[in-house]
Amino acid sequence: MKLNIAVLPGDGIGPEVTAQAVKVLKVVAMEFNHVFTFQNALVGASAIDKTGTPLPKETIDICKNADAVLFGAIGNTKYDDDPDAKIRPEQGLLGIRKELGLHTNIRPVIAYDDLLSKASLKTKQIKDTNIIIYRELTSGIYFGDRYLSDDGNTATDICKYERFEIERVTHAAFKAAQSRKRKLTLVDKANVLETSRLWRRIVKEIAPQYPDVRVNYTYIDNAAMELIIKPRQFDVILTENMFGDILSEEASVIVGSIGLLASASIGDQYAMFEPIHGAYTKAANKGIANPIASILSAAMLLDYFGLDEEAALVREGVDKSLKLHITTPDLNNKYDNISTTKVGDFIEDFIQNPDETNLN
Amino acid sequence: MKLNIAVLPGDGIGPEVTAQAVKVLKVVAMEFNHVFTFQNALVGASAIDKTGTPLPKETIDICKNADAVLFGAIGNTKYDDDPDAKIRPEQGLLGIRKELGLHTNIRPVIAYDDLLSKASLKTKQIKDTNIIIYRELTSGIYFGDRYLSDDGNTATDICKYERFEIERVTHAAFKAAQSRKRKLTLVDKANVLETSRLWRRIVKEIAPQYPDVRVNYTYIDNAAMELIIKPRQFDVILTENMFGDILSEEASVIVGSIGLLASASIGDQYAMFEPIHGAYTKAANKGIANPIASILSAAMLLDYFGLDEEAALVREGVDKSLKLHITTPDLNNKYDNISTTKVGDFIEDFIQNPDETNLN
Ligand SMILES: CC(C)[C@H](C(=O)O)[C@@H](O)C(=O)O
Ligand SMILES: CC(C)[C@H](C(=O)O)[C@@H](O)C(=O)O
Repeated sequence: MKLNIAVLPGDGIGPEVTAQAVKVLKVVAMEFNHVFTFQNALVGASAIDKTGTPLPKETIDICKNADAVLFGAIGNTKYDDDPDAKIRPEQGLLGIRKELGLHTNIRPVIAYDDLLSKASLKTKQIKDTNIIIYRELTSGIYFGDRYLSDDGNTATDICKYERFEIERVTHAAFKAAQSRKRKLTLVDKANVLETSRLWRRIVKEIAPQYPDVRVNYTYIDNAAMELIIKPRQFDVILTENMFGDILSEEASVIVGSIGLLASASIGDQYAMFEPIHGAYTKAANKGIANPIASILSAAMLLDYFGLDEEAALVREGVDKSLKLHITTPDLNNKYDNISTTKVGDFIEDFIQNPDETNLN
Repeated sequence: MKLNIAVLPGDGIGPEVTAQAVKVLKVVAMEFNHVFTFQNALVGASAIDKTGTPLPKETIDICKNADAVLFGAIGNTKYDDDPDAKIRPEQGLLGIRKELGLHTNIRPVIAYDDLLSKASLKTKQIKDTNIIIYRELTSGIYFGDRYLSDDGNTATDICKYERFEIERVTHAAFKAAQSRKRKLTLVDKANVLETSRLWRRIVKEIAPQYPDVRVNYTYIDNAAMELIIKPRQFDVILTENMFGDILSEEASVIVGSIGLLASASIGDQYAMFEPIHGAYTKAANKGIANPIASILSAAMLLDYFGLDEEAALVREGVDKSLKLHITTPDLNNKYDNISTTKVGDFIEDFIQNPDETNLN
């Protein structure tokens, strides 16, 4: 297969982790006789520094001409500390989601047996948890109009949802449930929000088309609690943009490190793959960033193109690295010293020699 | 002291747990020579059933004429399952918060030593956690306009904040921090929302007035994770209405049961005290509801009127009940059979005879 992949490393630890994912994709291409080409483009704070805008037109073009986008991370503490900044790195990420129409964000949350002891939660609590979050990604309060009054004293954000926006991600989530444990939970705040009531109404309407899927409904406040006290009750979680942002980052506690959570963002024409973690400016260039989330995002890219065997091998490599504790300091104790690159190297070696790879 | 207390038991387990809090307040009055009078009023689904509205005018009058309000819980699954219901129990709770101007909601999150083993989190993770959440309660997306288009296909909720709304709860939170560990964390989503940027700007402006308080800022998605992986880093959490709803219910996992979390909602003229848990229709009338959240809400009521010794004694009673496992099934294993009323009785006895009370 020939794949032209746009690579947007972004800010902070983005470039380091993305480099490992690219390395893994390259070795996959070599071993399986694919032709993967990579084209880098600027986004986020680093794009602002170089071009004055977080999402240069050229970046959009590169993404639209590619078969898929591999995204790193964006953000920089200097913008976080300045609420008055008019140009912000996040506009790069939100802009690309909108430009490419990436309406369906898919975030798997899997408790790896080898990491159970690393989590904040008790082992018996999280063992065998396997959740997939379907987050709507191009609408809601993220993309509504916002205003600041002229005197600077009143701020407004508008959360708006249209039927078709809810329907498309809902169908995707139901289909996912059919190939899993056939349970779908809609998370909303229908006791307060009109948008949530629209979500609940539409999910109720669509549910009979998937009679084999059990559907239940819960409020976001309750879900934030239940996710910790009974994570195994969830199979597919379907939710709107902001609630999905919160729940999926919270869910990282089940996995042991946010450095492990991958995601796919799918639209009708384009697809982008990115770790759910941020840019962690402070951790950049120290070799301590966990590349697994980026590598697993690359595995989701392979899934997307039906390269099942390839994706499975990447995941085996990840599993093996976890089992052998070839992991960055977020998962090992701080006296271990396995760098971002070393973790990537290990998984690269594994893909070349799945039966022989060991601590090297 | 003479106090006239409006009691709004509400729905589901609300009446049962509120009855225990009233019992405790009565024995406090007796032991300390206060005169507490109680006047009941309807709210929520039970008010809809009897009067057609979730917040009858009479209830508002009773609350406005009282020195404080003790609130139970509202909600009923029959409304949760019907996104088309025009009249909803939650309107009773939101209505009373607005009518009484209860802008500052205070939710303490304390890891009791005797309950550490009950929590989903590892003991070493949560031990000594003591957080207080200041949640803005009368604005934001809870109280903005909302619309459903005539064709029913587009829903909108407006999140709006005005400077004064942010300032008053911010000052309250800073003052609380001064009498605690002097650390305040603003939780927002300033990388996306205009309202969050206004929050961040105002908190930054106010901070220099409290030079002894360290301030930091974090995004809601990150906070939802950090609350679980490093809860002890937090002292006072300040946040807007919706994020406060989510974080405070999530925080219940630190305490071991949501049946333990109390809250105070304070305005310029009125004050209301309520458990943060909901109505749990399914648990109603079984004697299994935990009355501690309601009893601790009564303790916060006593705090509010400066009755420190009284409040301390109530809390000692609660501690003792936890230590002796005089607790409802959410905290004991299911073969224990200590009812809602029995827990209330124990704390009542303790207040009468602090030195003698034991398992009876
Ligand atoms: C960086 C930020 C705008 C983004 C979001 O809120 O969507 C991130 O948190 C994510 O979840 O991908
Ligand atoms: C019942 C509901 C409207 C309410 C809220 O969301 O504020 C509740 O969850 C709470 O936290 O008091």
